[in-house]
Amino acid sequence: SKFEYVRAFERPDPLLPNTFIVIRLDGRSFHSFSARHAFTKPNDIRALHLMNAAAAAVVRDLPDIAIAYGVSDEFSFVLRRETTLFERREAKLVTTVCSSFTSWYVFLWPQFFPETPLVPPLPSFDGRAVCYPALGNVRDYLSWRQADCHINNLYNTTFWALVQQGGMTTQEAEEELKGTFAKDKNEILFSRFKINYNNEPEFFKKGSVIFRDYTDVLPSAAAPDSSSPAAAAATAEAQETATTAVPREKSKTQIEKEKKRAKKAQVVVEHVDIIQDAFWEKRPWILGDR
Amino acid sequence: SKFEYVRAFERPDPLLPNTFIVIRLDGRSFHSFSARHAFTKPNDIRALHLMNAAAAAVVRDLPDIAIAYGVSDEFSFVLRRETTLFERREAKLVTTVCSSFTSWYVFLWPQFFPETPLVPPLPSFDGRAVCYPALGNVRDYLSWRQADCHINNLYNTTFWALVQQGGMTTQEAEEELKGTFAKDKNEILFSRFKINYNNEPEFFKKGSVIFRDYTDVLPSAAAPDSSSPAAAAATAEAQETATTAVPREKSKTQIEKEKKRAKKAQVVVEHVDIIQDAFWEKRPWILGDR
Amino acid sequence: SKFEYVRAFERPDPLLPNTFIVIRLDGRSFHSFSARHAFTKPNDIRALHLMNAAAAAVVRDLPDIAIAYGVSDEFSFVLRRETTLFERREAKLVTTVCSSFTSWYVFLWPQFFPETPLVPPLPSFDGRAVCYPALGNVRDYLSWRQADCHINNLYNTTFWALVQQGGMTTQEAEEELKGTFAKDKNEILFSRFKINYNNEPEFFKKGSVIFRDYTDVLPSAAAPDSSSPAAAAATAEAQETATTAVPREKSKTQIEKEKKRAKKAQVVVEHVDIIQDAFWEKRPWILGDR
Amino acid sequence: SKFEYVRAFERPDPLLPNTFIVIRLDGRSFHSFSARHAFTKPNDIRALHLMNAAAAAVVRDLPDIAIAYGVSDEFSFVLRRETTLFERREAKLVTTVCSSFTSWYVFLWPQFFPETPLVPPLPSFDGRAVCYPALGNVRDYLSWRQADCHINNLYNTTFWALVQQGGMTTQEAEEELKGTFAKDKNEILFSRFKINYNNEPEFFKKGSVIFRDYTDVLPSAAAPDSSSPAAAAATAEAQETATTAVPREKSKTQIEKEKKRAKKAQVVVEHVDIIQDAFWEKRPWILGDR
Ligand SMILES: Nc1nc2c(ncn2[C@H]2C[C@H](O)[C@@H](COP(=O)(O)OP(=O)(O)OP(=O)(O)O)O2)c(=O)[nH]1
Ligand SMILES: Nc1nc2c(ncn2[C@H]2C[C@H](O)[C@@H](COP(=O)(O)OP(=O)(O)OP(=O)(O)O)O2)c(=O)[nH]1
Ligand SMILES: Nc1nc2c(ncn2[C@H]2C[C@H](O)[C@@H](COP(=O)(O)OP(=O)(O)OP(=O)(O)O)O2)c(=O)[nH]1
Ligand SMILES: Nc1nc2c(ncn2[C@H]2C[C@H](O)[C@@H](COP(=O)(O)OP(=O)(O)OP(=O)(O)O)O2)c(=O)[nH]1
Ligand SMILES: O=P(O)(O)OP(=O)(O)OP(=O)(O)O
Ligand SMILES: O=P(O)(O)OP(=O)(O)OP(=O)(O)O
Ligand SMILES: O=P(O)(O)OP(=O)(O)OP(=O)(O)O
Ligand SMILES: O=P(O)(O)OP(=O)(O)OP(=O)(O)O
Ligand SMILES: [Mg+2]
Ligand SMILES: [Mg+2]
Ligand SMILES: [Mg+2]
Ligand SMILES: [Mg+2]
Ligand SMILES: [Mg+2]
Ligand SMILES: [Mg+2]
Ligand SMILES: [Mg+2]
Ligand SMILES: [Mg+2]
Ligand SMILES: [Mg+2]
Ligand SMILES: [Mg+2]
Ligand SMILES: [Mg+2]
Ligand SMILES: [Mg+2]
Repeated sequence: SKFEYVRAFERPDPLLPNTFIVIRLDGRSFHSFSARHAFTKPNDIRALHLMNAAAAAVVRDLPDIAIAYGVSDEFSFVLRRETTLFERREAKLVTTVCSSFTSWYVFLWPQFFPETPLVPPLPSFDGRAVCYPALGNVRDYLSWRQADCHINNLYNTTFWALVQQGGMTTQEAEEELKGTFAKDKNEILFSRFKINYNNEPEFFKKGSVIFRDYTDVLPSAAAPDSSSPAAAAATAEAQETATTAVPREKSKTQIEKEKKRAKKAQVVVEHVDIIQDAFWEKRPWILGDR
Repeated sequence: SKFEYVRAFERPDPLLPNTFIVIRLDGRSFHSFSARHAFTKPNDIRALHLMNAAAAAVVRDLPDIAIAYGVSDEFSFVLRRETTLFERREAKLVTTVCSSFTSWYVFLWPQFFPETPLVPPLPSFDGRAVCYPALGNVRDYLSWRQADCHINNLYNTTFWALVQQGGMTTQEAEEELKGTFAKDKNEILFSRFKINYNNEPEFFKKGSVIFRDYTDVLPSAAAPDSSSPAAAAATAEAQETATTAVPREKSKTQIEKEKKRAKKAQVVVEHVDIIQDAFWEKRPWILGDR
Repeated sequence: SKFEYVRAFERPDPLLPNTFIVIRLDGRSFHSFSARHAFTKPNDIRALHLMNAAAAAVVRDLPDIAIAYGVSDEFSFVLRRETTLFERREAKLVTTVCSSFTSWYVFLWPQFFPETPLVPPLPSFDGRAVCYPALGNVRDYLSWRQADCHINNLYNTTFWALVQQGGMTTQEAEEELKGTFAKDKNEILFSRFKINYNNEPEFFKKGSVIFRDYTDVLPSAAAPDSSSPAAAAATAEAQETATTAVPREKSKTQIEKEKKRAKKAQVVVEHVDIIQDAFWEKRPWILGDR
Repeated sequence: SKFEYVRAFERPDPLLPNTFIVIRLDGRSFHSFSARHAFTKPNDIRALHLMNAAAAAVVRDLPDIAIAYGVSDEFSFVLRRETTLFERREAKLVTTVCSSFTSWYVFLWPQFFPETPLVPPLPSFDGRAVCYPALGNVRDYLSWRQADCHINNLYNTTFWALVQQGGMTTQEAEEELKGTFAKDKNEILFSRFKINYNNEPEFFKKGSVIFRDYTDVLPSAAAPDSSSPAAAAATAEAQETATTAVPREKSKTQIEKEKKRAKKAQVVVEHVDIIQDAFWEKRPWILGDR
């Protein structure tokens, strides 16, 4: 029709090739949403499990997601640097992940909150995409989120101990914690409430890490070819001597094969440290070696 | 923490000021989603009502949405040109609208499909934002979608008549319609199936238009000050003689007042022509006069 | 070659259609450049004429430039809203204008500074493109630059009078002017130096406006068809009643004809007020009427 | 002033951190410019030396340029991945490089073309910025340009031999070369014109590589600290074991020191292979090791 010219106003939005794409979602106004649905404080185990279930479903859905990390009302999804999902179109990527996640969150709600019906304003999530050029940058991104998780959880744990067990008002607790350092909060927890922060659940201290697990299966058989520990080492060497970064063209068969493996692989949720190297060295298929 | 530098990789994404922002959502793989949930063909009235209910909830939620238009598995939301919602940040706008819509869609599903439980893959929607600099452009955008609705609905109505009532296979029907014009399809419908396309429901022929209705109330009292027919005329005149397009600064009180009015105004769903001028002339508060 | 994949890293950068594109250039480090080449203070007439000559050459070269405005070491070029020059690619537009301008500036230097050879660091200009959706916005843009010109020129005139005629040091002059308003500066100029600011050259007070002049020729014959006063009025009426903003398709012949006219039209440099309406009403072909 | 709101229409345009920024300039309409100024065919040594002189001046001016590569009417400038020049603002970077280059080109023209005055249309250059996330990508970018140089030069050398020495018309030569491979062209050159392509000047076969040379001076003293061969090796090791890509904060003193070294370092122009590793291994300070 003569109106079709309006399509030309859409702007192309391809994300830079050969970068890791991180999509971070964050619950909109979850301060009031959590209150309205009587989340326990500081951590509601049902709410966190629901977030994880929704995120795991998204990860299962999109094999190009290498790893996801969640804490509080947010989740970050890391797409492999070579992904061509939606031709790397920014709006498509961020809205699809955001919409799928929301869909699962609302769909699974009754399963995790059987006694608490959802009441409007309904849960929703904003989203953004960020590109990271180097593996070190994306590792640092994840470290940033997990370090934040630790800082917030230590604060919240102490804050609510002072309120719930110490009988303080929220203002008094806030005042008490102003200017304190980590060791001060540990001290308060231990001396006043006999809580050893180290013994708090890893779930709360570390947040949730979601990825496909190939460790149990024979790596050469199950992990994406370039991502088994052996293959990864070989690749590293190859790249060092290469004169080119031309993305290796994978055959369609190979891509199909890898997708099938990814579909079959178990998506697991763990509450572990991802700041140190150990996690990554054990699972070289997740982000590769560069 | 030392990891915080990764924030600097986020790119600012403000949309051009003084343009209409259209956010269009479209169901992901609704071809198979509609089949899996046994939507009636070509138009499932429950599915369409569900789309409208979700969209109306989003419109109610965001007073900066001037009008929304939906057809099939898609919905377009038009934000006023002066909106500063989320500082016009593109990702925030598109993901928030997309996520809210999805949330309502899944939440309301049982109400509209009481007999059909939702089965994964769950419904999700992609989204995009497009800026339109002139009122004429945004009118043309909406005309484009409504013209598309008409073209598709005429095709689908004829196609499924040939299949469901004419006993053709889908291939045969496709073959039959290849190269036909509108009048040919009208003719097929009428001569073979006694269907007068003009008498088909406006719902299917026109799609759904959602907006705040101020027509019943005294305009000067209820419509945003600058948008009552009278005020609009005055504004038009003012703008013609103005040497400047400096956005009129509204006082905080006035913005609050308008928001309250918007909240109280009834959000209506109509199936009417928005290509011709009549609709717009009757409702000058929707998009203004430029 | 196998290296060609690197082209895919280039990002498309089309500017929003149906917006005015302003390209503003500004001399890099002209504070020291003007000192190094002994520009007279506060206004060096040779330097300003050189800027204008370079800008006029750029305007002559690119018929899609509707108007240009210059002051000090900067120049703004306004492209018609319907321009498709370089498919509206941002980098192409801004670098081409910037490079052409620089080329002319260096090329014409000896003509305007016959006694002053250019010494490195050579003159260079940064550039940026900004889109304006409404005629009012682009008018305001130009008003912004001209208002700035006035403010700076009044300041500089007074400042250098205090220094050059009043014998103050630059610090003393700065101190003297701190916190003063326009009327205070006018007063200083008049009472201490017998300078009536109103009698200062329009060149310095208004800056330089460059455009194609069709006023002397029979408008209907010489101005672009849609831009003669008569045609503009007709167009305005047409647009008011139109249901669509579909850009009128011009025939190739017509475009060619207009280009030829533009090439033949005289490019003029004037030092006139462009904040008030008079300038624009007299020359409706420059920006059109919306 | 009340017009200042128009500044808000400027869009922020920071380029992704931690990526190499390539700025490529290309002569506008040099087909006709070279003809108008009687460039010798296929390679005009004066024109090429002028390009190199302009590029070298730009490299000298901007210490953040690691290397530049030129051929025909184009030049590519590679900025270090950690550059913060102009806060990595795209328009600033591309216009500044483009404008400086143009300025030098016009300024130096009489020196390289003493007998040929410049006649309008004057030379100008378009420019673009492209980000490359990995060292391999930027190496491939440069390989792409140098491979292109080879392909074009072999073609042009053969083409103009056929015309100038073989007496063919340009159409005949074009026809003759249609569908030929490299070895065919080598064969034509050798058998018909006794030209051994290998003996053609490296200048024409390889294009021009411009960089700061630290090889002659004691590396540890002269090269940027992290870029001496020894330091680079150490850095490589460090990065391999690092858990983070946090950009090492350099002290202001260190940055100043490196800038001074860069300013003192000699900018050299060479016509050498940059596709193979040898060039890079010998000069680890140019792009670093990732
Ligand atoms: N009680 C409780 N609250 C939680 C839990 N997880 C998250 N929240 C709440 C605490 C915070 O107020 C909020 C998350 O902080 P945000 O910075 O995302 O703020 P909020 O979502 O309110 O605003 P936003 O729309 O993201 O700007 O969610 C939980 O497990 N239990
Ligand atoms: N039976 C039935 N199907 C519908 C109805 N509304 C939409 N659909 C189906 C018909 C189309 O196959 C599909 C919408 O077309 P699209 O172009 O959006 O394709 P689809 O969503 O499959 O793919 P996409 O992910 O958008 O590229 O949804 C309905 O009321 N009844
Ligand atoms: N003496 C003299 N100086 C002038 C004339 N026109 C411009 N200038 C100087 C005065 C200012 O220092 C400078 C323009 O100010 P800008 O804000 O553009 O600063 P500048 O170019 O130094 O730095 P920039 O690279 O643009 O950030 O150029 C003139 O006619 N005479
Ligand atoms: N005779 C001669 N011509 C040259 C020399 N270097 C470059 N040129 C000419 C040959 C080509 O026609 C032209 C470069 O090709 P381009 O693809 O850049 O085309 P051109 O600049 O004409 O158009 P453009 O504005 O870049 O799209 O410059 C030279 O050394 N001698
Ligand atoms: O939402 P917050 O508080 O985590 O902070 P942010 O996400 O950095 O801010 P924004 O959502 O406005 O980008
Ligand atoms: O999705 P379609 O088929 O309506 O077509 P489109 O939306 O223009 O295509 P895309 O979703 O790829 O932008
Ligand atoms: O350059 P100035 O001082 O006129 O200020 P600006 O142009 O707004 O700043 P920038 O050049 O950094 O965009
Ligand atoms: O200009 P060319 O012919 O080298 O080709 P290009 O540079 O890839 O094309 P464009 O200048 O249009 O980006
Ligand atoms: Mg946030
Ligand atoms: Mg939140
Ligand atoms: Mg949060
Ligand atoms: Mg689509
Ligand atoms: Mg769809
Ligand atoms: Mg659709
Ligand atoms: Mg500036
Ligand atoms: Mg300047
Ligand atoms: Mg300036
Ligand atoms: Mg080109
Ligand atoms: Mg060229
Ligand atoms: Mg070229």
